[in-house]
Amino acid sequence: MNKYNSLDKTAANHSALTPLSLLQRSAQIFPAKRAVVDDDRSLSYRELYQRCCQMGNALRCRGIKTGDTVAILCPNSHEMLESHYAVPMAGAVLNSVNIRLDAATLSFILAHGEARVLFYDTQWENLVEAAIAEFEVPPLLVAIERKAGVSEGLADLDYESLMMEGDPGASWQRPSDEWDAITLNYTSGTTGNPKGVVYHHRGAYLAAMTNAMVFDMTAETVYLWTLPMFHCNGWAYTWAITAVGGTHVCLREVDAMEIYRRIEDFGVTHMCGAPVVMNMLLQDLGREGVTLSRPAHFALGGAAPPSSVIRKAEEIGFHITHLYGLTETFGPATLCVPQQEWQQLSLEERAVNMSRQGVPTHGLDEVAVLDIANGQPLPADGNAMGEICIRGNTVMKGYLKNPEATEKAFRDGWFHTGDLAVMHPDHYVEIRDRAKDVIISGGENISSLEVEEVLYQHPKVSEAAVVAMADEKWGEVPCAFVNPVDDGEEPTAEEIIAFCRERMAHFKAPRKVVLGELPKTATGKIRKNMLRDSLPR
Amino acid sequence: MNKYNSLDKTAANHSALTPLSLLQRSAQIFPAKRAVVDDDRSLSYRELYQRCCQMGNALRCRGIKTGDTVAILCPNSHEMLESHYAVPMAGAVLNSVNIRLDAATLSFILAHGEARVLFYDTQWENLVEAAIAEFEVPPLLVAIERKAGVSEGLADLDYESLMMEGDPGASWQRPSDEWDAITLNYTSGTTGNPKGVVYHHRGAYLAAMTNAMVFDMTAETVYLWTLPMFHCNGWAYTWAITAVGGTHVCLREVDAMEIYRRIEDFGVTHMCGAPVVMNMLLQDLGREGVTLSRPAHFALGGAAPPSSVIRKAEEIGFHITHLYGLTETFGPATLCVPQQEWQQLSLEERAVNMSRQGVPTHGLDEVAVLDIANGQPLPADGNAMGEICIRGNTVMKGYLKNPEATEKAFRDGWFHTGDLAVMHPDHYVEIRDRAKDVIISGGENISSLEVEEVLYQHPKVSEAAVVAMADEKWGEVPCAFVNPVDDGEEPTAEEIIAFCRERMAHFKAPRKVVLGELPKTATGKIRKNMLRDSLPR
Repeated sequence: MNKYNSLDKTAANHSALTPLSLLQRSAQIFPAKRAVVDDDRSLSYRELYQRCCQMGNALRCRGIKTGDTVAILCPNSHEMLESHYAVPMAGAVLNSVNIRLDAATLSFILAHGEARVLFYDTQWENLVEAAIAEFEVPPLLVAIERKAGVSEGLADLDYESLMMEGDPGASWQRPSDEWDAITLNYTSGTTGNPKGVVYHHRGAYLAAMTNAMVFDMTAETVYLWTLPMFHCNGWAYTWAITAVGGTHVCLREVDAMEIYRRIEDFGVTHMCGAPVVMNMLLQDLGREGVTLSRPAHFALGGAAPPSSVIRKAEEIGFHITHLYGLTETFGPATLCVPQQEWQQLSLEERAVNMSRQGVPTHGLDEVAVLDIANGQPLPADGNAMGEICIRGNTVMKGYLKNPEATEKAFRDGWFHTGDLAVMHPDHYVEIRDRAKDVIISGGENISSLEVEEVLYQHPKVSEAAVVAMADEKWGEVPCAFVNPVDDGEEPTAEEIIAFCRERMAHFKAPRKVVLGELPKTATGKIRKNMLRDSLPR
Repeated sequence: MNKYNSLDKTAANHSALTPLSLLQRSAQIFPAKRAVVDDDRSLSYRELYQRCCQMGNALRCRGIKTGDTVAILCPNSHEMLESHYAVPMAGAVLNSVNIRLDAATLSFILAHGEARVLFYDTQWENLVEAAIAEFEVPPLLVAIERKAGVSEGLADLDYESLMMEGDPGASWQRPSDEWDAITLNYTSGTTGNPKGVVYHHRGAYLAAMTNAMVFDMTAETVYLWTLPMFHCNGWAYTWAITAVGGTHVCLREVDAMEIYRRIEDFGVTHMCGAPVVMNMLLQDLGREGVTLSRPAHFALGGAAPPSSVIRKAEEIGFHITHLYGLTETFGPATLCVPQQEWQQLSLEERAVNMSRQGVPTHGLDEVAVLDIANGQPLPADGNAMGEICIRGNTVMKGYLKNPEATEKAFRDGWFHTGDLAVMHPDHYVEIRDRAKDVIISGGENISSLEVEEVLYQHPKVSEAAVVAMADEKWGEVPCAFVNPVDDGEEPTAEEIIAFCRERMAHFKAPRKVVLGELPKTATGKIRKNMLRDSLPR
């Protein structure tokens, strides 16, 4: 106890951090400004705020209580954006569900999360019907009737009718505690049941602020939703764009020329996405020979951009930033902050630097590479491989109703990512592999990512994945699965193996190459477990 | 209790918010980048961080404990910036003292804050000697030996020697609670003893993040310290510039041509200051006929910029933003966010809009205008006058050892500013007066600011202040004190009164005009109480 401690928190100087306040602020400052564009609909910040207050009130009137779950199954749209505010305004927790799931998984999620309401786009009415077929008490079913038209009888009511039950002038309550849950996001694990990652108001506010900052966003920002909002709440950009008073431009389906048109029509400044989106953009826009009239920033999450991608992107007019994160870290945990002196480097050298996962955002305290054996930090030598571990305020509350997984993920005071990486001397982390994807060949570790990076340099390779294949002599050897580029002569296995052997230690080069399409999860990750299972044991 | 509540805080997902982490982050990301320039010295972020860790450790070695006070009396310099990190790294509270105070006030502050250490620039050695003359146990006296050379025997040791006692590799502890005190700033009240405003780590982190955001700051930001760092810790920009990895350019004394040279030499992008600094800049640079080679942002705090100032500033190359805040709100509480459509307005119309205090920063929940009589919000009609009241996370902990003042300031769950304002229909607040500066004439309220605004439009007026003068018939009438421009013919009282009567209701025009210099507080505020006292009762 010291003389400063007697000054207590009061209503004047302490309130729960929540991204809901950011919408309220933008509605006050930019009432008439376009908050969201969704095809032929457009809402100002005043309208967006009022609709969220109204829907929040309607949910309360329907008996939704603090800590209840409200699920949504919907593409990027104003309803989807609204739900990120309206549901927490009612004190409830938003569970935004991946639209590419099968009925069994959707059923599991709705049951596990105990969803009391489900907003769904009628495009997925059959899926929803199948998912809830065996529910004794199904959630209140609220149809979002857009492209696919009205509900064919499954819905209890439609979205706009539910909203009309609320009072647009209703106020909302801040969470009583900023540690309260705001959203629930199920991971798309490649094996087992998905885990329900719970976000807190505190982290969501901080992620919104820091994600706006790391990307230099301002009130002039126009953000195109090439990233699904159901991915970690759009990497917290559902809240970050609102924080700066920027404009959300919705995109229901990813289509390169449609993206190009929206960039030009709305003056898009920023967008995010997975490599698969960037690749498609580069291929399709490159083929059409179009370039952007103004440069746009593209934050690429989930895979290192090879030099060929950086070059093509810059030719078309995209500035690429490389991000890394997980559902458990509200999306972005690190970004590859470009250093001024990199401008002087050759494209290849720049690509090497930019391909690293980088440094922590302001919301985190530390991103460390820890020795798997003893949990101690490894030297920052770009060589010693350990597990990326993270701590800070933009890490999840934990996994819903799964204390074992929560405890395991948070052991020793760190969130354990399961990703293997090195720490470079400049304190940029670089992922070498998922822990479970390392190939152990004759006692040597082979990073599947390292082999994949070489494969991607081959001009006839569009996508590649490398997994361990059982081998009598070596224990395991690398096997490559390759999806060739569309418009070209198909490569031969021998050609690809020779290409790899020229560029890496021979024991790392694939022993076998399988050509064809690669299986993917609902979020676009290559399902390496399926590739592994396809190989003889 | 609901299913989400069982997920507790852990070391992995919750840590105390503190601006100290922002320095650590920038030192990691931008180790070689110039963090601070101070005349012929320059420190990289790595060096700055190491020096702060070292000094923090040295303070611990000297027995400084959590909750102790360390004071500093120093102009803007790298030592001053360092103390904003080093002192809290030791768990202590930084009391940055105004360098323009007299010995008695300094003595009061050191005693009241219980300073255990005083860092002081030897320029003020005599002042310090006088201030501590009657202390039984004086603080440890640490001389900062720069312009004025070495201590003449008063100091216990010098700053660099103290630093050498610490370990540059020492780690620092986060505060155990983000509500812990980080700094202590005494208000320069115009009457009575100064009050000690206590800041908390949580608010300092949030103020740093939001102040960087509202000003669109990035890693390219070069910030010139035209604002004293001892003003509300430089309006939290001591932490905000570091948050983005920008460069601090120190300035020990305010001199227009020196400011101009530094803007050009270092490529300054942002600066802050009081109107007196802006006025001096415009006069001196205007006379020299220089213009900036690149535009620089100037955040003007504490007084509305008249149209003449905006025009002159824009001609020279400054973009003005108008801020409003108090010591109690970590500096900026509101800013006058420019709306896109204002670009189409005439200069005069723009000036009217820009002269308002504006809208809250992201760190606050609400800035309201409340009825003095009943504490209820007044209509946003630009007319109803009430008190500006503020709440949110960037409001002080309270006043040190002054529970009465703390309770009074925080009554009814709001921080009461004592400023009178109206809320405009667009929800921008506009100050009409300090509560105590209103002139009540024949039962009508006259805003002294409103009369001053007209006085400032007079080409021969450099500074103006209007106070109440006793009047038998009307109770009170306005009396103007005017400081004429340097280089011109002195105006007559009649001329000024006539100028005012042409531009406002006659009862609001000053009855009397006194020409001459205006008395000011150490922070540059005009001492209206002295002006009032100079008038016959």
